[in-house]
Amino acid sequence: MVAKPAIDDLDRVIHERIRLGIVSALAASDSLTFAELKDILKTSDGNLSVHARKLEEAGYLKVSKAFEDRKPKTDYRLTPQGRKALESYLAQMEDILGTARRALGK
Amino acid sequence: MVAKPAIDDLDRVIHERIRLGIVSALAASDSLTFAELKDILKTSDGNLSVHARKLEEAGYLKVSKAFEDRKPKTDYRLTPQGRKALESYLAQMEDILGTARRALGK
Repeated sequence: MVAKPAIDDLDRVIHERIRLGIVSALAASDSLTFAELKDILKTSDGNLSVHARKLEEAGYLKVSKAFEDRKPKTDYRLTPQGRKALESYLAQMEDILGTARRALGK
Repeated sequence: MVAKPAIDDLDRVIHERIRLGIVSALAASDSLTFAELKDILKTSDGNLSVHARKLEEAGYLKVSKAFEDRKPKTDYRLTPQGRKALESYLAQMEDILGTARRALGK
């Protein structure tokens, strides 16, 4: 029998590398600013904006914009839906990785 | 302190969904044909070809073409380098997922 990794069920919104980084980082913090996320993910403004918007459109994160000391500040936080999606992704990936690990005999 | 998922170290060749499926499936079998991989991954001929070629170019898999009963048969197998790359990817992803899981309090 051939092992079938459950690849086709994988949440494609979360799986993308930068987006996985965003949701993982937000899971660990109540909220993060654009600058903090950029520092964590070591990516460009444009790249971070595009991927954050994709997550926002999926309902996985909430963006709030405000001024602090007259400077614009953008805050990101995970929505309950985003948290749930990350939990499902974790379970799926652990399943895939577990199968691969057993296959490698590790 | 903000948790920093090690997203920027992640092997981008393996991380892509279809390619992860290919290397995971090949880790579990000595070799697989194009038709078997297509069946496992539920993807199109074009998509599978493109991603298999990318893995071949990275040195992660070896392709052999032959004729069987006058029909062309393409076989794929993981190279030692591909096996090693999958092992590293597993370790990195387990680290990222573990951090996310602790963050979610699960």
